[in-house]
Amino acid sequence: MAVILPMETQERDNETAPNSGIEGLLALAENDMKAVNALISERVGSDVTMIPELATHLISSGGKRLRPNLTVASAQMCGYEGSDHVKLAASVEFMHTATLLHDDVVDESDLRRGKKTARLLWGNQASVLVGDFLLGQAFRMMVETGSLDCLGILSHASTVISEGEVMQLNVAKKMSTSEDMYLNVIRAKTAALFAAATEVGPALSKRPEAEREALRSYGMNLGIAFQLIDDVLDYSGDVSKLGKSIGDDFREGKITLPVVLSYLRGSENERGFWRRVMEDGAIEDGDLEKAVALLENHGALSDTIGRAQHYGSMAKDALAIFPDGVHRRALTDVVSFAISRAV
Amino acid sequence: MAVILPMETQERDNETAPNSGIEGLLALAENDMKAVNALISERVGSDVTMIPELATHLISSGGKRLRPNLTVASAQMCGYEGSDHVKLAASVEFMHTATLLHDDVVDESDLRRGKKTARLLWGNQASVLVGDFLLGQAFRMMVETGSLDCLGILSHASTVISEGEVMQLNVAKKMSTSEDMYLNVIRAKTAALFAAATEVGPALSKRPEAEREALRSYGMNLGIAFQLIDDVLDYSGDVSKLGKSIGDDFREGKITLPVVLSYLRGSENERGFWRRVMEDGAIEDGDLEKAVALLENHGALSDTIGRAQHYGSMAKDALAIFPDGVHRRALTDVVSFAISRAV
Repeated sequence: MAVILPMETQERDNETAPNSGIEGLLALAENDMKAVNALISERVGSDVTMIPELATHLISSGGKRLRPNLTVASAQMCGYEGSDHVKLAASVEFMHTATLLHDDVVDESDLRRGKKTARLLWGNQASVLVGDFLLGQAFRMMVETGSLDCLGILSHASTVISEGEVMQLNVAKKMSTSEDMYLNVIRAKTAALFAAATEVGPALSKRPEAEREALRSYGMNLGIAFQLIDDVLDYSGDVSKLGKSIGDDFREGKITLPVVLSYLRGSENERGFWRRVMEDGAIEDGDLEKAVALLENHGALSDTIGRAQHYGSMAKDALAIFPDGVHRRALTDVVSFAISRAV
Repeated sequence: MAVILPMETQERDNETAPNSGIEGLLALAENDMKAVNALISERVGSDVTMIPELATHLISSGGKRLRPNLTVASAQMCGYEGSDHVKLAASVEFMHTATLLHDDVVDESDLRRGKKTARLLWGNQASVLVGDFLLGQAFRMMVETGSLDCLGILSHASTVISEGEVMQLNVAKKMSTSEDMYLNVIRAKTAALFAAATEVGPALSKRPEAEREALRSYGMNLGIAFQLIDDVLDYSGDVSKLGKSIGDDFREGKITLPVVLSYLRGSENERGFWRRVMEDGAIEDGDLEKAVALLENHGALSDTIGRAQHYGSMAKDALAIFPDGVHRRALTDVVSFAISRAV
């Protein structure tokens, strides 16, 4: 599938180095992430049958652990010398995993990252409860750090994420969703955790408010860009890269930015199509192909990538107050990586 | 329905003063509970449509708010003079409400306290997510108190509660559940929150470990007694008092102590009956009546009340290290109240 490539990303050679943008981050965080991974394995444990199996199924499913890597790198960049960032990174990953478990129940999803979802293997009930367990464990680790600042940041993110999920429920299948409304949803449900993951670095290091603000802004805008590219990939992605099949959002009637743009720019006849498939769920053979064609005709995919680049630029610029160095460069590259996935 | 009344509770006159045991607690906590209730109303708020409505539906459904009352009274007994106990009491109520929301989804319940459940009115999805929201808000309030001790107590309880729920899922419909196993379940899923609710009082007041231990033990044993009496009421209760109809546990195949005892004491033929109704869910007309008759024949209801009195005594004795006074008497009376509901 062809997408018109915006300038910045056109220059990247993704065929030969698809993940180049994230390697700097992974290398810097590697040692600390060993401790994070060990802690995750330890805290996922419970004497209660099913909890470790279910939690491990998802946690070990080959995600990049981008969020805890970001926490580690942001703490390092702020000169943090203790070991509590390991606990916070593990907390962030547990919060993320809890969200995924509950998400899959809410969305009735059968596949995640190409594997059967926990809810399909262990049931909705266990998925809800193990999500609760992981959230509890996340808070326990935060408490162990003794950092009320970080507890405040992450507990606030926790409520914002669930508000975002409920907002998504409210706009579900509503073609009247505006771009602004959609941005509010992903800011809350996705970007807030990225923002918290990077803000705890300076908070733990007791750095000035300006650095907290900068890394919060970096994470927030990176998170928005990340989600927008995910949205594009759902209509154009490579299953082996993304671990989800094309058209999942479409089949679930999930309104995302490409659809919002295509609907706004479409004829009355095209809008009728979107309402039939998204609102009524009356999807017929060939409708996904038709949807992709409409998205392309209206430049909705390339413009969503353009929007993602806008937020990506904001993320990069937010880092400007930090001195140039391996950490700032690695965090900058993550933004390019997030966007390069779609091109 | 007749239950053989054990000595201690036989002396109570429940017809004329059914709630007498809790009035002391409610009177002592009344002023602080006004602040707790105001805080609950405030923190249940969100700009996101559906969150306040759904949360308020359950929170305002006429529960006694026993747990936050216990938090307030235990803080008062420990001489606490600040206002953070109000936040912790509201946190405890939010944790409880979040559990109920997720429970109703897990158990597919249609009624709670005689009202339609949130999941029936707003759906399972919203119930899961608003539960998550309330849990997040609970942690935010704890963080605001700045008490890492209390954060530790309540975050630990949060994981234990979800472990208990998963344990309950594991023993569901298994007639081989032992009394010990069942006690482990209710210790985790019900009693742990009572224990945390009362332990934060001395923790906030920076009282010695012995007082924390005493109030933790009080709450834990009160919680066990409370749950055991709930179990009895499901086979003998008055709908108007309990707000749930008789036989709910039975119809859901929920193994509770009366059933465990009746099964252990029953003939092979009777065990076949229990396996058919609880494990296979093959319930026929007249089976609830037959179950109640078996429970009575084997003294399973009166003996469960006896067990509850045992834990109730432990709860009362745990308070012995505190000087006699209105608070100790009120907390002692709560134990009698919890048990008197069944007689």
